[in-house]
Amino acid sequence: MSDEPKSKNITWHGAEVTQEQRETILNQKGCVIWFTGLSGSGKSTITRRVEQKLLSDGVHAYCLDGDNVRHNLNKDLGFSPEDRTENIRRIGAVAQLFADAGVITCTAFISPYRKDRDEARALLGEGRFIEVHVSTSLEECEKRDPKGLYQKARSGVIPNFTGVSAPYEAPTSPELVVDTEGRTVDECADEVIAYLRARGFVPAP
Amino acid sequence: MSDEPKSKNITWHGAEVTQEQRETILNQKGCVIWFTGLSGSGKSTITRRVEQKLLSDGVHAYCLDGDNVRHNLNKDLGFSPEDRTENIRRIGAVAQLFADAGVITCTAFISPYRKDRDEARALLGEGRFIEVHVSTSLEECEKRDPKGLYQKARSGVIPNFTGVSAPYEAPTSPELVVDTEGRTVDECADEVIAYLRARGFVPAP
Repeated sequence: MSDEPKSKNITWHGAEVTQEQRETILNQKGCVIWFTGLSGSGKSTITRRVEQKLLSDGVHAYCLDGDNVRHNLNKDLGFSPEDRTENIRRIGAVAQLFADAGVITCTAFISPYRKDRDEARALLGEGRFIEVHVSTSLEECEKRDPKGLYQKARSGVIPNFTGVSAPYEAPTSPELVVDTEGRTVDECADEVIAYLRARGFVPAP
Repeated sequence: MSDEPKSKNITWHGAEVTQEQRETILNQKGCVIWFTGLSGSGKSTITRRVEQKLLSDGVHAYCLDGDNVRHNLNKDLGFSPEDRTENIRRIGAVAQLFADAGVITCTAFISPYRKDRDEARALLGEGRFIEVHVSTSLEECEKRDPKGLYQKARSGVIPNFTGVSAPYEAPTSPELVVDTEGRTVDECADEVIAYLRARGFVPAP
C-alpha cells in the first residue's frame, strides 16, 4: 500500500481509534459490571434486565454469562479450582475487550474467589470495574433452587458446589451490594442503572 | 425476588434480549469480518481503517488483533501448531460474542490454517462470517517487512514463521479478496465497507 499522508482531521490521530474517541461517538463509557454471588442469587436475571433496560434507552449493553461463555470460549474448562480460575481469567480478558469497545458489559458468574475477581479488577483498571455483590443468602438461594442444583449438591450428586461443598468468598468492598430478598427484578436493575448514570457511564434519561 | 408479571411490551419476550432486537435498536447487523493473510500483508492496517471509517459513520465496530488479544486473553499461548489452533479457536469464540452483541467485528490474524478458519465460520454461521483474504504476495510482504520479522525468520532467529518456515493455507472461496499492491489503505477499507453495505450489515451512508 502506498504511504498516504496522515489525515488532517484532528479526530483521528494516526490509524488508531482510541477508547476516548469511541466513547465520544457512542455517547457512553465502556465498563464492566461484575456481578458475583451464589448460584440462584439472581445474578443472571438482574444482568439480563439491566441489558434490556439500557438497550431500550439506546445504550449499547451486553451480558456475558454461563449461557454464552461456557459453551464455546470456555468449553474446555471444568469446575476444579484451577479451571474456575482460568474461566474467570478469560472472562475478565473478554470483558476488558468489550469495555474497550465502549460497551456497558455485565458479567454474571459466581466467581467465588476474591483473588480472581481482583485480577479482573486490575485488568480493567479502577473506575471501569464495578463489582456488584448480589447478596442473597445461602438459605434463600437454597429455598429458590430454580434448577434443583442445591438438592443435587446436598445429596452429593454435584461435587464442589459453591456454598455447599466449595467456598464462596464474599466481596469486602464492592462498589454495590444488591439485596434481592423481597424486591423485584426491576428494582434491583434500576439500582444498578442509577449507579451507572451517577458515574457518567451512561447518559441521564 | 418476587415473581413479576412478564412485560406486555411485545418488543421483549421474557427476560432475554434477542440478537434481532438488539440489531433493530442498534440499526446494524453483527458480523465477523475475518481478515487472513501473511505477516505484513496489511490486515491490521486495513481493519483499523475500516473500524475508523465505520465509527465516524456512527456504526459500532471493533477490531480484534494481536495487540489486544495476545497480551491478555491468549497470553498463555505460543506459536506451536496446537497453540495457534487454540489461539484462533478462542478468537473465533470471542468474535462470536461481539457479533452476537451486534458489533461489526474485524479480526486481523494470520490464521494460516484453513481448518481453523472454517471452524470459526461454522461457529458464526453462514451469512455472518465474511472471510477476507488480504492477498499481498510473499515477495511484497518480505519487501515491506515493517518489523524486520522476515529477515529474522530467514536467518533462523524466529522459527515457525508463516510463509517462510511454516505453511500458509490461502482461502479457497473467501467472500472477498483484497489486493493491496499499488492501492491505498482507504481504497482497501472502502472495498470492505461497500461489501457490508451491499449485504445490509451497515446502513447506506
